[in-house]
Amino acid sequence: MTSIKATRTSPNTYTVVNDFGAELKVSAPGVPGTFSPGELLQAAVVGCASLSAEAQLAHQLGQDFTASATVESTETTGLITDLLYTLQVDMAGLDQQAQDKLIASAAKKIDRLCSVKRSIHHGINTETVIAP
Amino acid sequence: MTSIKATRTSPNTYTVVNDFGAELKVSAPGVPGTFSPGELLQAAVVGCASLSAEAQLAHQLGQDFTASATVESTETTGLITDLLYTLQVDMAGLDQQAQDKLIASAAKKIDRLCSVKRSIHHGINTETVIAP
Repeated sequence: MTSIKATRTSPNTYTVVNDFGAELKVSAPGVPGTFSPGELLQAAVVGCASLSAEAQLAHQLGQDFTASATVESTETTGLITDLLYTLQVDMAGLDQQAQDKLIASAAKKIDRLCSVKRSIHHGINTETVIAP
Repeated sequence: MTSIKATRTSPNTYTVVNDFGAELKVSAPGVPGTFSPGELLQAAVVGCASLSAEAQLAHQLGQDFTASATVESTETTGLITDLLYTLQVDMAGLDQQAQDKLIASAAKKIDRLCSVKRSIHHGINTETVIAP
């Protein structure tokens, strides 16, 4: 897996870049034009889950299917305890039975392929190094 | 905590927005101009940890201190098992003893304040809903 780099570009704000020209700003919640750390965690889950279902959905609905997704998190005493991922897909071209089948198979793909979701669920060891 | 929304804007790519005008694209690793889900998880950790140390560092080094950070992840059999967060801070104005003291107190703040890091370590329940 690739690594990311962050640089402090103003008080309370870091600019994050990867090796492929993407950039974002992370700051406290509610700062215009930036994501909070909690939102980036949600973005990781929304991306991972949605992309895991991509092949299945494109196969049944065509390459140009319409979909949107949200993630909501529940926090208790300073811990994020639950993340609820909801994917809304336009399946208007399918009958009820085909829709049910596609939903079940997409959910199965997400469970199997989304390593971010499984890793977060399982727990990830985190280490901190601070260097002068 | 605020929630985020993602819309499928092209095959294999979702555009993620929050309520404060920030936007990013998530896709498979290596797609120009986009972050992968794993990179967004790293970005969540780098932001959370760095911002948790902000007040401590600004107090000792001034509002305009220079810092950069990285996160590297270790993956085994489809699970992200370890995230190594490294923060590099310019402490040239401090003597060795003051540097050691600041590093220790910043690390303590990160452990105490960074809820994303603690939540990931602890494990987060994740649920999926797919709707037509």
